[in-house]
Amino acid sequence: MIQLFTTGGTIDKVYFDQKSDYQVGVPNIEEILNGANVHLDYVCEILMQKDSLDISQADRQLICERVANCPHRRVVITHGTDTMIQTALALLPIPDKVIVLTGSMQPARFKHSDAQFNVACAVTAVQLLAAGAYIAMNGRIFDPRHARKNVKLNRFETA
Amino acid sequence: MIQLFTTGGTIDKVYFDQKSDYQVGVPNIEEILNGANVHLDYVCEILMQKDSLDISQADRQLICERVANCPHRRVVITHGTDTMIQTALALLPIPDKVIVLTGSMQPARFKHSDAQFNVACAVTAVQLLAAGAYIAMNGRIFDPRHARKNVKLNRFETA
Amino acid sequence: MIQLFTTGGTIDKVYFDQKSDYQVGVPNIEEILNGANVHLDYVCEILMQKDSLDISQADRQLICERVANCPHRRVVITHGTDTMIQTALALLPIPDKVIVLTGSMQPARFKHSDAQFNVACAVTAVQLLAAGAYIAMNGRIFDPRHARKNVKLNRFETA
Amino acid sequence: MIQLFTTGGTIDKVYFDQKSDYQVGVPNIEEILNGANVHLDYVCEILMQKDSLDISQADRQLICERVANCPHRRVVITHGTDTMIQTALALLPIPDKVIVLTGSMQPARFKHSDAQFNVACAVTAVQLLAAGAYIAMNGRIFDPRHARKNVKLNRFETA
Repeated sequence: MIQLFTTGGTIDKVYFDQKSDYQVGVPNIEEILNGANVHLDYVCEILMQKDSLDISQADRQLICERVANCPHRRVVITHGTDTMIQTALALLPIPDKVIVLTGSMQPARFKHSDAQFNVACAVTAVQLLAAGAYIAMNGRIFDPRHARKNVKLNRFETA
Repeated sequence: MIQLFTTGGTIDKVYFDQKSDYQVGVPNIEEILNGANVHLDYVCEILMQKDSLDISQADRQLICERVANCPHRRVVITHGTDTMIQTALALLPIPDKVIVLTGSMQPARFKHSDAQFNVACAVTAVQLLAAGAYIAMNGRIFDPRHARKNVKLNRFETA
Repeated sequence: MIQLFTTGGTIDKVYFDQKSDYQVGVPNIEEILNGANVHLDYVCEILMQKDSLDISQADRQLICERVANCPHRRVVITHGTDTMIQTALALLPIPDKVIVLTGSMQPARFKHSDAQFNVACAVTAVQLLAAGAYIAMNGRIFDPRHARKNVKLNRFETA
Repeated sequence: MIQLFTTGGTIDKVYFDQKSDYQVGVPNIEEILNGANVHLDYVCEILMQKDSLDISQADRQLICERVANCPHRRVVITHGTDTMIQTALALLPIPDKVIVLTGSMQPARFKHSDAQFNVACAVTAVQLLAAGAYIAMNGRIFDPRHARKNVKLNRFETA
């Protein structure tokens, strides 16, 4: 059984015509898993729906508590990319859990998006890795202590 | 560096209107990797373009030789699903290589396809697994000695 | 009110993995109209589900009878491209009806397909044209007496 | 020969991750026409790249001048939906031109968008209509003097 938590971020962004701006919508990770003929046991819960720049220390603490207290060993978290590393670092001390954070640079609703690929990476990695907190982006698995988001190149890389 | 080999199968099927039947086309795995903002070093080579039901023992031997002799430790092979398990079993004796086979139930060119998800699983798994031959399908990693294709449910499962 | 009739053809082709061949599936024209925020009154009926090369004279006569006897003046027919012109010619003598045939070179289920564009052309043309039988393909409206399918270039053109 | 002019609007909106807001990008109408196997002669020119709420009277006058002075009789204009009717009304006095405005409620880059359908309607209508200025949205052709955008239902309707 895999526990999925969603926190918002670009992966779940939705565009509303009236307001002419993006808003965070319902989680796309379940739609991605359903659409890819995936055959895994999982539960999904929305923790919050925020741009990752708006995730406060209190939010981050809530995420840590929910991960630490959830009954499942394997946890995937979708998260905005701007502060994904901070949240992963906050999750590092949690023992006996395999925690993989992922997200996307383009909204899952776009014709061309990295969301499906990244979710697949995270769901695979969470089944294979030892306990710890990791980031799955751009086809790679990062240790958050040695990762950075390269804003210019729009990707994560080893720091 | 990851070595990608393609052998054909549904993932690469293309439809030609004139002939009213499917034919195997250029490999989609590179297009999938390029489209998902993936940042990995890889080389890709077409070994054959066949329905997996048409892969002969000679074809299978060729695949084994090419994998065994390629300079890279990590190898992903796209393959038709009907005989993917046989090919994986044939690859098992190869030492010191991490070999992951994947493919799809729906052509990569379809609007709704499992191809992108499966390729992402395979590319992630090949980076994390120990030496051996594996199948990445339906969001899971299978040992080919304990896997079967459930034709009715259109998915792979533990045997 | 627009009457939609479907007869099969590439636009409705579906791929079944087990059989490794295409089969004609449920009509995609309604899914296209629903997905494009279209606000029109229409009814849709499946007349047959055939490759247009398999449409017999009896089939063609049935299509003509159903069009002639339907209560609506404006009729769109989805049809395979190989004999679309013959069917359009057979429909020409029907008085007081605006009849537009369309279809696609690539199945509507493909990521890249001309199906949505062609359906939009047909639905627009049927509202604007005078009584007669027409073909809407490749962004143009053809008189079937002066049209041919260019198989090499994979498009319709004026003959 | 059809003249295409683009002015911006939702149809051309692009999302930039860094800024977390939408910006108007390169015109999608040409990509739509190329992707649909359309075989028409056309030229395309970007007049401006604006949200239609930001189109000033000076902008509108520029659009009118460019349409009136272009060498082609048939003109399609992509435009934001919020002031599409005003621009169409401003174009009404131009003699001897068939002018069709279109746009979309969802960006063309979204997986699910009305952009392709609307462009197909406009391109078809501009070939069939008499001189005048029209709006092609939601599968219908509107006289701008008798049209309104229903913001709640997110569609155009007869006023």
